[in-house]
Amino acid sequence: MAEPLRVALAGLGTVGGGVIKLLDANAALIERRAGRPIEVVAVSARDRHRDRGVDLARFDWVDDATTLAARDDVDVVVELIGGADGPALTLARRTLEAKKAFVTANKAMIAHHGLELANQASAAGVALKYEAAVAGGIPVIKGLREGAAANEIAQVYGILNGTCNYILSTMESEGRDFADVLADAQALGYAEADPSFDIDGIDAAHKLSILASLAFGARLDFEGAAITGIRHVIAADIAEAAALGFRVRLIGLADANPAGLFQRVHPCLVPLAHPLAHVSGSLNAVVAEGNFVGRLFFQGRGAGEGPTASAVVADLIDIARGEYGPAFAMPVDSLASLPRAPGGDRRGRAYLRFTVADRPGVLAEITAAMRDAGVSIESLIQRGAMPDGSVILVMVTHEGPEKSVTHALDKLEGSQSLTGRPLWMHILDI
Amino acid sequence: MAEPLRVALAGLGTVGGGVIKLLDANAALIERRAGRPIEVVAVSARDRHRDRGVDLARFDWVDDATTLAARDDVDVVVELIGGADGPALTLARRTLEAKKAFVTANKAMIAHHGLELANQASAAGVALKYEAAVAGGIPVIKGLREGAAANEIAQVYGILNGTCNYILSTMESEGRDFADVLADAQALGYAEADPSFDIDGIDAAHKLSILASLAFGARLDFEGAAITGIRHVIAADIAEAAALGFRVRLIGLADANPAGLFQRVHPCLVPLAHPLAHVSGSLNAVVAEGNFVGRLFFQGRGAGEGPTASAVVADLIDIARGEYGPAFAMPVDSLASLPRAPGGDRRGRAYLRFTVADRPGVLAEITAAMRDAGVSIESLIQRGAMPDGSVILVMVTHEGPEKSVTHALDKLEGSQSLTGRPLWMHILDI
Repeated sequence: MAEPLRVALAGLGTVGGGVIKLLDANAALIERRAGRPIEVVAVSARDRHRDRGVDLARFDWVDDATTLAARDDVDVVVELIGGADGPALTLARRTLEAKKAFVTANKAMIAHHGLELANQASAAGVALKYEAAVAGGIPVIKGLREGAAANEIAQVYGILNGTCNYILSTMESEGRDFADVLADAQALGYAEADPSFDIDGIDAAHKLSILASLAFGARLDFEGAAITGIRHVIAADIAEAAALGFRVRLIGLADANPAGLFQRVHPCLVPLAHPLAHVSGSLNAVVAEGNFVGRLFFQGRGAGEGPTASAVVADLIDIARGEYGPAFAMPVDSLASLPRAPGGDRRGRAYLRFTVADRPGVLAEITAAMRDAGVSIESLIQRGAMPDGSVILVMVTHEGPEKSVTHALDKLEGSQSLTGRPLWMHILDI
Repeated sequence: MAEPLRVALAGLGTVGGGVIKLLDANAALIERRAGRPIEVVAVSARDRHRDRGVDLARFDWVDDATTLAARDDVDVVVELIGGADGPALTLARRTLEAKKAFVTANKAMIAHHGLELANQASAAGVALKYEAAVAGGIPVIKGLREGAAANEIAQVYGILNGTCNYILSTMESEGRDFADVLADAQALGYAEADPSFDIDGIDAAHKLSILASLAFGARLDFEGAAITGIRHVIAADIAEAAALGFRVRLIGLADANPAGLFQRVHPCLVPLAHPLAHVSGSLNAVVAEGNFVGRLFFQGRGAGEGPTASAVVADLIDIARGEYGPAFAMPVDSLASLPRAPGGDRRGRAYLRFTVADRPGVLAEITAAMRDAGVSIESLIQRGAMPDGSVILVMVTHEGPEKSVTHALDKLEGSQSLTGRPLWMHILDI
């Protein structure tokens, strides 16, 4: 029998428990596919005594996860601790220093330190793999790194955060408001007690920056992403969008254009004819548009015990098979350092929603600001009073430069006509 | 600079020309991703003088493709000749005998001879790759072989033939009949002059048998697939299905159940809530349901120059990187020999359409046959006379064993009440 691939597991939360369950449940199958058994030998977590629904007595327990890197009986360390820095990063560095393979589901760490770790892995001649860091169980890292490798990718975009998609789809199907649905999602465990990473788009931006690096052969640049979350989307926005033939989705989008690399996470209006409009609930989906393959669309479960464990173990199988190479598809020094492309020169249609005072002159002021900034209005709807007495004014612009919209909104900043911050959503006309 | 991967190309039809165009257009990018250049050194095709829109003068031309296998200046042979046997198979065997890697887009050859070739590749220690054989540009071979490798797959199914999907979607959107749309598709080059391989489901079954082998770790068994094409679907079927909330798609479906391996290509009613209902035109899509990952959905362009070339070159990049292993995810002798699971014991809902004579007693005869066979009817619609004076009778059954439907239809065989063959479509209740 072939030698087993010996695994140390750091972090035994939902995903860690899932990895053990998966390796138990599918052991025979995995051995056939990997060409050898994959065996956990040691584990580490904060609380030794929590019941995780799996038998841990058969594994060596260590209290300090970072010591897993040094063990002679370990071939690969799986990091499921989380956090961009701290023990996760220490463990990653020590594991690669010890010339062992490293597998992680940690999008924040990869987004911030992926290139440093890839360099270290490459120097050590070992694997660094992170399929589970983006879109959970969907093999989209592999899809870009390998499946679409022959293509120049024009753009990569998708629904990268299941919590936001669950909230937006529920707002859509039940006509409820954001805060209300978020509270429910928290009660059900679909959203964290501190939901900011998800609902403010940071998690999606971590994932987007990783996809962008792979798609464009560019250095990771998480800090270059423009990020807006879904906190300010109200039920009326979703209803107005629906009336216009759109669904609201939090879209992470990146492209490499002559001006450089553009990365943005933003709530968008997605036309019903686009497959992303049909991605509902906590699903994730990623689209890559290649110059030969055309549009590739991947959809599946983006989080949770089973899907994330599936991605982690797929990485382990690749390692067991010896089928791996540079973590970012090419050596780090081959990745291009692209400047950040400004958003203002992009052209598109915008959805703008104003909450305004119910008095004469308001419409004139807003439309004058649009005209002065050169924004051309395709349609405009004014709806009766909201519970607080304010009025909703929704417009969709004709295609034009985004900076014109910015100018118009700047001009309206502080206007007495507005009773709240305007909401700007981009229209995904792809 | 790293040594180039030297490629010989056999077959210069649409896809062969596309491979050359792709390697030209994306050469720099591919070199970065593959770690070395990928260079065509020799080509072969039937007609040396046809204009393929690419400069062939820089390549060595050989008239007999099978001699490409023996060349010392070639590392990998790409076969785009087609046909399950003949020169394609001879070339495959000689290439692997010569211990060179082999890449093909030939689904018929892989479906019939894949295991023999995989054994040969494995003995020679070289790659056998065929991403382009299934679903064109969609990396679904990789998705099953690697991306979903940690999962026991419950079933794999999808839309595997773009010609059929184009015809069905056009019938749907334009309300036209099969023969009419087929003739248009042939004129436009979307369907072959002899369309049988596509419209009778054979091409889809070739692909399905390959997916099933990968998904279930089972030996290829193309002959075990039950195949029905779309020839007998009429515009009225699509309209009735739509009225019931379904779209008609040619679905290839395989599962491994306790009785063995089940493989079927059949026109099905797909509920609008299922993502396959939204796959229109010539697109392909594949669903795999894994025990940990849940439902994975892949969609993209399933044929044509660009997408197929994209898949071929992805295989070449894997080979250039040295990232490949057993062609069917595990050694051939690890693949299970599964018996063929009978369809009759499966349970499901059926759509049945009868064209019947417009006279008394017909409805009674048909419903009695259903009752006697134990088929329970969920809904029944009778529509007025067709142009030929016959009447359409459409029923949807409650869930029940398929063999009961077979019994009922057997009983009605030869009945004077029927003016044409009944059409049976399965309802995809997944």
